[in-house]
Amino acid sequence: MTTQQLGAMQDWTMRVTHVIDHAAREAGTREIVSRWADGSETRTTWAGIREDALKMAQALQALGIEPGERVASLAMNHARHLVSWYGVAGMGGVLHTVNPRLFEDQLEYIVNHAEDRVLLYDAAFQPIVDKMRDRWKTVEHYICYDSGENSPAFEDWIAEQDGDFEWVGGSERDPCMICYTSGTTGNPKGVQYEHRSTVLHAMAGLQPASFNFSGSSVMLPVVPMFHAAAWGLPYAGAMAGIKFVFSAVNDPAVLHEMMLKEGVTDSAGVPTVWLAHFQHCDKEGIDLPPLKAATIGGSAAPKFMIERLLKNGTRVQHAWGMTETSPIGTVGGPTVDWDDLTLEQKVDKCAMQGRPIFGVELRTVDLDDMATPLPRDGKTAGALQIRGPWVLKRYYKAQEDAVDEHGWFDTGDVGILHPDGTLQLTDRTKDVIKSGGEWISSVELENAAVGHPAVAEAACVGMFHPKWDERPVLFVVKKEGTDCTPESVIEFLSSKVAKWWLPDAVEFVDDIPHTATGKISKKDLRDRFSDYKLEAAE
Amino acid sequence: MTTQQLGAMQDWTMRVTHVIDHAAREAGTREIVSRWADGSETRTTWAGIREDALKMAQALQALGIEPGERVASLAMNHARHLVSWYGVAGMGGVLHTVNPRLFEDQLEYIVNHAEDRVLLYDAAFQPIVDKMRDRWKTVEHYICYDSGENSPAFEDWIAEQDGDFEWVGGSERDPCMICYTSGTTGNPKGVQYEHRSTVLHAMAGLQPASFNFSGSSVMLPVVPMFHAAAWGLPYAGAMAGIKFVFSAVNDPAVLHEMMLKEGVTDSAGVPTVWLAHFQHCDKEGIDLPPLKAATIGGSAAPKFMIERLLKNGTRVQHAWGMTETSPIGTVGGPTVDWDDLTLEQKVDKCAMQGRPIFGVELRTVDLDDMATPLPRDGKTAGALQIRGPWVLKRYYKAQEDAVDEHGWFDTGDVGILHPDGTLQLTDRTKDVIKSGGEWISSVELENAAVGHPAVAEAACVGMFHPKWDERPVLFVVKKEGTDCTPESVIEFLSSKVAKWWLPDAVEFVDDIPHTATGKISKKDLRDRFSDYKLEAAE
Repeated sequence: MTTQQLGAMQDWTMRVTHVIDHAAREAGTREIVSRWADGSETRTTWAGIREDALKMAQALQALGIEPGERVASLAMNHARHLVSWYGVAGMGGVLHTVNPRLFEDQLEYIVNHAEDRVLLYDAAFQPIVDKMRDRWKTVEHYICYDSGENSPAFEDWIAEQDGDFEWVGGSERDPCMICYTSGTTGNPKGVQYEHRSTVLHAMAGLQPASFNFSGSSVMLPVVPMFHAAAWGLPYAGAMAGIKFVFSAVNDPAVLHEMMLKEGVTDSAGVPTVWLAHFQHCDKEGIDLPPLKAATIGGSAAPKFMIERLLKNGTRVQHAWGMTETSPIGTVGGPTVDWDDLTLEQKVDKCAMQGRPIFGVELRTVDLDDMATPLPRDGKTAGALQIRGPWVLKRYYKAQEDAVDEHGWFDTGDVGILHPDGTLQLTDRTKDVIKSGGEWISSVELENAAVGHPAVAEAACVGMFHPKWDERPVLFVVKKEGTDCTPESVIEFLSSKVAKWWLPDAVEFVDDIPHTATGKISKKDLRDRFSDYKLEAAE
Repeated sequence: MTTQQLGAMQDWTMRVTHVIDHAAREAGTREIVSRWADGSETRTTWAGIREDALKMAQALQALGIEPGERVASLAMNHARHLVSWYGVAGMGGVLHTVNPRLFEDQLEYIVNHAEDRVLLYDAAFQPIVDKMRDRWKTVEHYICYDSGENSPAFEDWIAEQDGDFEWVGGSERDPCMICYTSGTTGNPKGVQYEHRSTVLHAMAGLQPASFNFSGSSVMLPVVPMFHAAAWGLPYAGAMAGIKFVFSAVNDPAVLHEMMLKEGVTDSAGVPTVWLAHFQHCDKEGIDLPPLKAATIGGSAAPKFMIERLLKNGTRVQHAWGMTETSPIGTVGGPTVDWDDLTLEQKVDKCAMQGRPIFGVELRTVDLDDMATPLPRDGKTAGALQIRGPWVLKRYYKAQEDAVDEHGWFDTGDVGILHPDGTLQLTDRTKDVIKSGGEWISSVELENAAVGHPAVAEAACVGMFHPKWDERPVLFVVKKEGTDCTPESVIEFLSSKVAKWWLPDAVEFVDDIPHTATGKISKKDLRDRFSDYKLEAAE
């Protein structure tokens, strides 16, 4: 007899359809609120989402879409986008969430590379569709989420079906979603999320150390649903039966109103969301919304932001991850010693990237010798590597795996691991500056520089130096109505970083280039200043 | 190309060794405290548990134990028992946690049936070992956890190894633990927990709606580690890196002292644990320990217990499950509307069995026609069925599956499902009383009866009735120093249950028989009164 025949637990294929089935069954009346671009509002429930997903799966089958094929969405956050997550997966398809902020060449590349057969889009992105239509070679059907003017309207399209459908089964290792990384070099690369990796990631995401979801949670995710599966929130939220509040626009006045009106307890987004929210509240002379928790990812939150949110009674936590990691790698909720910390200590802890949740394994390795792991001593910076069940093994259609022989995926980040497991990111591998055999963090210099009262934005890159290999040069955009000199910036920095880290030059520029996801594009900056020479190098 | 070759997430075999690796890596210094039977105390950490588990795995290999073979434990809760959970699984073995409270025939049967090759035991159970040794045919090695007097001492045994060991791998569907049900009829049946089911169960167990574990949790599990894997706590706790406080004795004075001294936030156990704790506090004139949460399982907590714990600021939640369900099926944490409820409403909610966590699916079916599912209307009682990834498919060495063709496992419980998913248990299938084609809950009659000031314990069984098929008879043990009549009990009940539910007879007895796990044994009660006849039946 085999081990299994000798007695076993049940066979249970880990498919994301279990997630929506659970939500509809156990939290069927819990609401999903959508605030649309035109200011209107619709309300549905988990049971309603499932009902529509069943109809959508039928509608896709009626179009001849086969299991394993890609269906694209070009959309903001709303209930119909959520329906599509489960509707596409439910017929065995793969949802390709397209980032509408990509450049045209990228938009062309990824839709053709994914071979999307259907594209669902928001009316707000009609101009993109009009412009790209001829360049997208594989898209046969266009459906519009919120208008019937130029394409069939989503609600009409699914209304033709009766919802009498059984989810399409398959292997738990089948893909259910694909997201492309908008890297700064080369073509975007596709990361396929599998049913199994998605379910495990969501189960881990529920826990108190992560999103801390229970049935009473009310989440307004500002992170777009096209960004790394919105951090897995639509799956984790369904597992816990939370209430979702979606807004198709990110105007802080709208977000603020929705948060108060709908009793929002949790939010997730990039730091700039909170910057805009602060400005809105200050201008209107009103309090911050009484959120229980704000999860911040994408880039590092400045300390003043963390402090203001903590003082508001809001748990602040960084979440670190990337498209290749589903994305949750680390989350920085309250530490074991939390209650004994001063506010300043809490802010310092929150400024780091948090600790890995079960499933994720991290290590740092020597930047010069990637085979040598570094100690978790809270001091030594190295290249950050990750492995685990929801971490990429191979990019879509790639010829080889993206991991080493032990399964380690190189994140491209530079970080320090602390003895308690906390990750502290210090730079990107390609941006860290090598000076005289030692490493200087460009990000730390930038973070220090923006503390200067006249500095609006700063970007630091390493420039060739005949003696030291590279030396830092700081590019600075001045704040409107202020002025400063290179010397004053250097002097400001000298109390914040080691002396040998101080930039060899400070250059004032009108603007700093950004990527489609709003991050500083050092590649473009280096291109723009490809002729730049340090004095010592001349 | 296969789907996997087209791009995939990482391969990651779901083995419980990942759990202890994570705990040792990310919460390596978090403590595990053991209070031993002799009053002494030892402290280790998650890193220490892993180190010892590695040595134990080596020691088992040195004894010639092979992957897939069974190693038994006969022990209370302590760190060395915890080491064994991971040490046995880590060498590919299957830990058989033996309940020392079983009757001798059961002890003989299960150890021989499991073919345990090694037995690890507490010195307190030396008398059991001495008595059973000749009857246990397969046990070759005896190791004692806390004494070297009669068998090699555990610490000496593992100290011979250096811990330089790599966990033995295998399939995630391999078993890692076996527990026997101590049913009231027939031989005990073995339930094998798999690596996969164990990891999934623990991930689900972490969540806010269940054990709500984060790194700052300090859990004193009173539930024994030999009871259904101690509700999975040793795995879920490791995933979250909690602090564990174990006590090898359940004296309320000891538990109380440990709770205060070690800052315990969470506890889990059967209701009688709290009954004893209340009495201790009342006698000593001291407050209840300031626990954040008390999870109660095994049998239903009376309302006065729930109320007293809630008033103490302690979250009270029933957890319902069975050995066959790993065991978590439902947990009764705060409901969505919690903050709007009165204390009385909260007590009523907490008195039910809670809601299924993601992974678990429940249904009730007609007691007379098990193929007909019943509505989740909060009114209709039926046979409770369950399915999911950590629910039994087949008992150990059984010839056939224990589930129907759709995977439903019949729990033997009778319950009501509410529209919000809440499970309300009303009886056991074999104890529910059929009267005139309608069902009467024996448990509800018993619960009502113990509210009578002179009733210490009550057990209700159905007796043959020529007209109604069965009618309830209530067996009552009077409280010491009190007296009452059958008529006063009936009168007391008449305001609590429907008139046609009122027992046809109340019989006073000196004692009510119990099973090895402390539940009322209605089988024994029926045997004792096999000649009993209702007046109408004579």
